[in-house]
Amino acid sequence: MSFLQEIMQFELTTDILDSLKQAIDEKNNDFLNTQLHELYPPDIAQIINQLNLEQAAYIYELLDEETAPNVLLELDEEKREELLATFSSKEIAEQLDNMESDDAADVISELPQEIQEEVLSHIEDIEQASDIAELINYQEGTAGSLMAKELVSVYAFETVSQCIEEIRKQTDNVDTMYAVYVLDNNERLIGILSLKKLIISHPLARIEEIYEPDIRSVKTSATTEEVADIMHKYDLVMLPVVDQLGRLVGRITIDDVVDVIKETADENIQRMSGISDDVDTNDHIWRLSRARIPWLLVGMCGGIIGSRIIGSYEAQIQIHPEMAFFIPLIGAMGGNVGVQSSAIIVQGLANNTLLGDNITPKLFKELGVGLINGLICSALIWSYAFLIEDWQLAATVSIALLTVILCASFLGTFVPLTMNKFKINPALATGPFVTTLNDIIGITIYFLIGRLLYAVF
Amino acid sequence: MSFLQEIMQFELTTDILDSLKQAIDEKNNDFLNTQLHELYPPDIAQIINQLNLEQAAYIYELLDEETAPNVLLELDEEKREELLATFSSKEIAEQLDNMESDDAADVISELPQEIQEEVLSHIEDIEQASDIAELINYQEGTAGSLMAKELVSVYAFETVSQCIEEIRKQTDNVDTMYAVYVLDNNERLIGILSLKKLIISHPLARIEEIYEPDIRSVKTSATTEEVADIMHKYDLVMLPVVDQLGRLVGRITIDDVVDVIKETADENIQRMSGISDDVDTNDHIWRLSRARIPWLLVGMCGGIIGSRIIGSYEAQIQIHPEMAFFIPLIGAMGGNVGVQSSAIIVQGLANNTLLGDNITPKLFKELGVGLINGLICSALIWSYAFLIEDWQLAATVSIALLTVILCASFLGTFVPLTMNKFKINPALATGPFVTTLNDIIGITIYFLIGRLLYAVF
Repeated sequence: MSFLQEIMQFELTTDILDSLKQAIDEKNNDFLNTQLHELYPPDIAQIINQLNLEQAAYIYELLDEETAPNVLLELDEEKREELLATFSSKEIAEQLDNMESDDAADVISELPQEIQEEVLSHIEDIEQASDIAELINYQEGTAGSLMAKELVSVYAFETVSQCIEEIRKQTDNVDTMYAVYVLDNNERLIGILSLKKLIISHPLARIEEIYEPDIRSVKTSATTEEVADIMHKYDLVMLPVVDQLGRLVGRITIDDVVDVIKETADENIQRMSGISDDVDTNDHIWRLSRARIPWLLVGMCGGIIGSRIIGSYEAQIQIHPEMAFFIPLIGAMGGNVGVQSSAIIVQGLANNTLLGDNITPKLFKELGVGLINGLICSALIWSYAFLIEDWQLAATVSIALLTVILCASFLGTFVPLTMNKFKINPALATGPFVTTLNDIIGITIYFLIGRLLYAVF
Repeated sequence: MSFLQEIMQFELTTDILDSLKQAIDEKNNDFLNTQLHELYPPDIAQIINQLNLEQAAYIYELLDEETAPNVLLELDEEKREELLATFSSKEIAEQLDNMESDDAADVISELPQEIQEEVLSHIEDIEQASDIAELINYQEGTAGSLMAKELVSVYAFETVSQCIEEIRKQTDNVDTMYAVYVLDNNERLIGILSLKKLIISHPLARIEEIYEPDIRSVKTSATTEEVADIMHKYDLVMLPVVDQLGRLVGRITIDDVVDVIKETADENIQRMSGISDDVDTNDHIWRLSRARIPWLLVGMCGGIIGSRIIGSYEAQIQIHPEMAFFIPLIGAMGGNVGVQSSAIIVQGLANNTLLGDNITPKLFKELGVGLINGLICSALIWSYAFLIEDWQLAATVSIALLTVILCASFLGTFVPLTMNKFKINPALATGPFVTTLNDIIGITIYFLIGRLLYAVF
C-alpha cells in the first residue's frame, strides 16, 4: 500500500466506459471487481448512470454490502428508480438499513406509496425504521425533510464521563459527529459541547459548567433555502433542528446543504436560459423537448407581435427598405442589455448584497450604466450608418438604440425586483421573458422614430 | 436569556439601515451597541457594506475585539480595502492576530505589497506571523491559497493519552476541529483519527492500532475548483493538504469551499449573461459599465453584419416588404434555442453528468430535441403566416424557422463542448456569443430561402 493515498479526480471517459461495458458483456468479473475496488461510491454511481438497466444491475450486484447503499444514493434519481424497481421490498430494506436516516428517507419517499410501508416493515433495525417513518412525513423543501436523526445528546446535569459513556453507546449509528448537543430536563436544546472541549475537560466536570449556550438552530418547518442561507452565511458545519417546543429532533449537515446550493444555482441558470423544468443531459429526449417548448412559444408570440408592428409600417419599408437593415441590431441589443441588467439584480437578490425593498436607487443606477453604454454604442452606430447610408437612417438607428438600451436597463431592473416583491423567482425574468419584451419595445421605438424623421425631413 | 436561541434570518431593510444611519449621525452609541450586540458578524458586515466610509469606520470602532475581525472578513472586498486604508499597520496586525491563518492570509494579500511586510512584523504571535507569511506565497486559485495551518496532528507511534495531551496544548489556535491527522516519522500524512474514536478508545492504545488509513488529501498545487469538486463529490468536511513529499502542510474546511462553489456559480451566470468581470450591484457605475460594454460591442458587430446581409436583399424587400416582418422572430428563436442548448451542456459539464470527450451522441440528441420543437414551432408559424400573408412567405418563414432551430441546437451544443475541449470556460459560449452567431446565421438562411421561393414561384 502506498503511504499517501492522494485523491485524484476520477474522470470517466468513453474509453473507460467502453472497456467496462465489454467486461460486463463477457461477464469478466475479475476485471470489474479490480476496477470497482479502486473507486469511491460517487465514481461508481457516475459509471452506472451511463449504463442501461441490465448493465447497471450487473455492476450493482458486484458491490459489497457497505459500498452498494452509498452508490445507490449517488445515482441520478431516474436511474435509482429504474434499479430499485427490479428489487424486492426486502432487498430495498436491506439497502436502507445501512444508510443514514435522512438518506434512507429520501430514497424511500421516491418509491410508490404502496411499496413504502412494505419496505419499512422489512427494515431490521426498529429504531432506523421508526426514524425513517418520522422523516418521510416532513414536507419536501423543509428543514425536517433535510435532517437526519443520528446525533448524540446529553443532559446538562450529566458529567463528562457519563457523556463519554453515552457516545460509546451511540457510536454505532452516528457516522459523522463533531459535537454533542446539550438538553435541559424537558428535552429542549440549550447548547452545544464540542468534542474538543469534551476531550480536554475533567471526567467529573458537569456538562452545565462547560457547554456553549450560544447555539443556532432552525425549526423543522424552515425552508431548505433558509437552511442553506443560514449555514453558508454563518459558516456552520452542523445545524440542529428543533420542534415547535424547542425540543431537539434532528440535525442537518453541510454536505446536504451544498447539494441544495448547487441545485438552486443550477435551477436559476435553467430558468434564466428559458428551460422550465429541472432537466439534465441524460434525460430522455421527450422530457428535454417538453422542458424547453414553453418559452419557445412565448418567444414565438413575441415574434408574431413584432411582425404585426413591422407590418403596420409596410408602406414605409417599401419606400425606405434600408429601415429593415437594422431590425436585428435593435432587437439583439435590447435583449443583451436586458439580460445583463436582470442577471446582476437576480444575483444581488440571491446573495443578499441588494436590499430588495427599495427599488428606486437601483433603477437610477442601472439607468446610469445604460446611459453610458448606450451613448458609446449609439455614437458608434451613428458613425457607421452615416458613412454607409443617409443621415436620417443614422439618426433613427442611433436614437432608437439609445432609447432601447435605456428601456432594456429599466425593464431588466424593474421586472426581477417586482417579481421578487411578489415572491416569484426573479430568475424567470432574466431569460426569454425580458428578451421578448425588449424585442417588441425595441422595434416599436425604432419604427416610430424612423417614421418621424423621414416624414419631417 | 431565552432557552432557545432560534436563529432567524436577519433581513436588512431600508428602515433598519436608516435608523442606524441616524443613530450614527447623532452618535447614539447606546442604541447602536444594543442593536449590534444582537447581530452576528455576517449581519453586521451586511450593514457596513451599505454605509459610506465614515459611517463604516464609526460602526467598526464600536465592535469588540472578538467580533471586529470576523466582521472584517465578511465585508465586500472593496469596503474592506477602504476601511483598512484608514488603519495603521499595527491596527491591521491586531485584527489579523485574532483570525484563522487562512483568513488572515486572504486579508493581508489584498493589501499593497509594501505594507504587507510591515503588518507581518507587527503580529505578536510569531507562529501566526510565520503561518501567514507561508500562506501568502501560494498562488491564488490553488489549494495552498485556500488552506489554513491550524490543525492537530500526532505520530502513529504515540498513544491516545499523548494525543489528548497534544490536543490540550494546541487547543488555543484550533477553532474548528473534527479529527486528528496521523503522521509517520517523516511527517508524511498516513491517516486520520476521528475525535469520536479518540474519545472511546483506551488511553494507552497506540494511534497506529486505531487510526483510519483511508484518507483523501490534495497537493498544495491542486486548483480550488478541483478541491471544491472533490469535497462536494465525496461529502468531505475537511480535506488535508500535503506538499510534494506527502508531508501534511494544512487543511481546507468545507465553508471555504462553499464560497468557491457559490462564486463559480455566480461567475458562470455572469459569463452567460454577457458580463465580462466579477461585479455586483454595490460596485461603482463605471465598473459596472466597463464589465458590460465588451459583449455589447460584440452584439453591435453582429447587428452590423446582419444589416449588411439584409442590405444585400434590398431590392427584394422593396418588392416583398412583408419579408421584413419576420426578421425579429427568426433572430429571437435562434437565440432562445441556442441559449437553451448551451445552458444544458454547460451544466452537464459542470456537474460531470456529461462525458466531455465524445461529442457526437450529444449533438444527435440535441438535434433530436431541436427537430421536435422546431417542427412544432414551424407548424404553428406556417398556419399563422398562411392565414395572414401568402403561401410563399408562410413557407419561407416556417422552413427558415426549422432550419434556424436546428442550426442553433447544433451550435449551442457544439460551441461549448469544443470550448471545453480547449479548456476555455464553456459558459462564455452561452451568452451573447451564441446569440449573435445565431442571429447572423438565422437572417442569412431566412433571406436565402425567401429569395429562392419568391424567384421560383
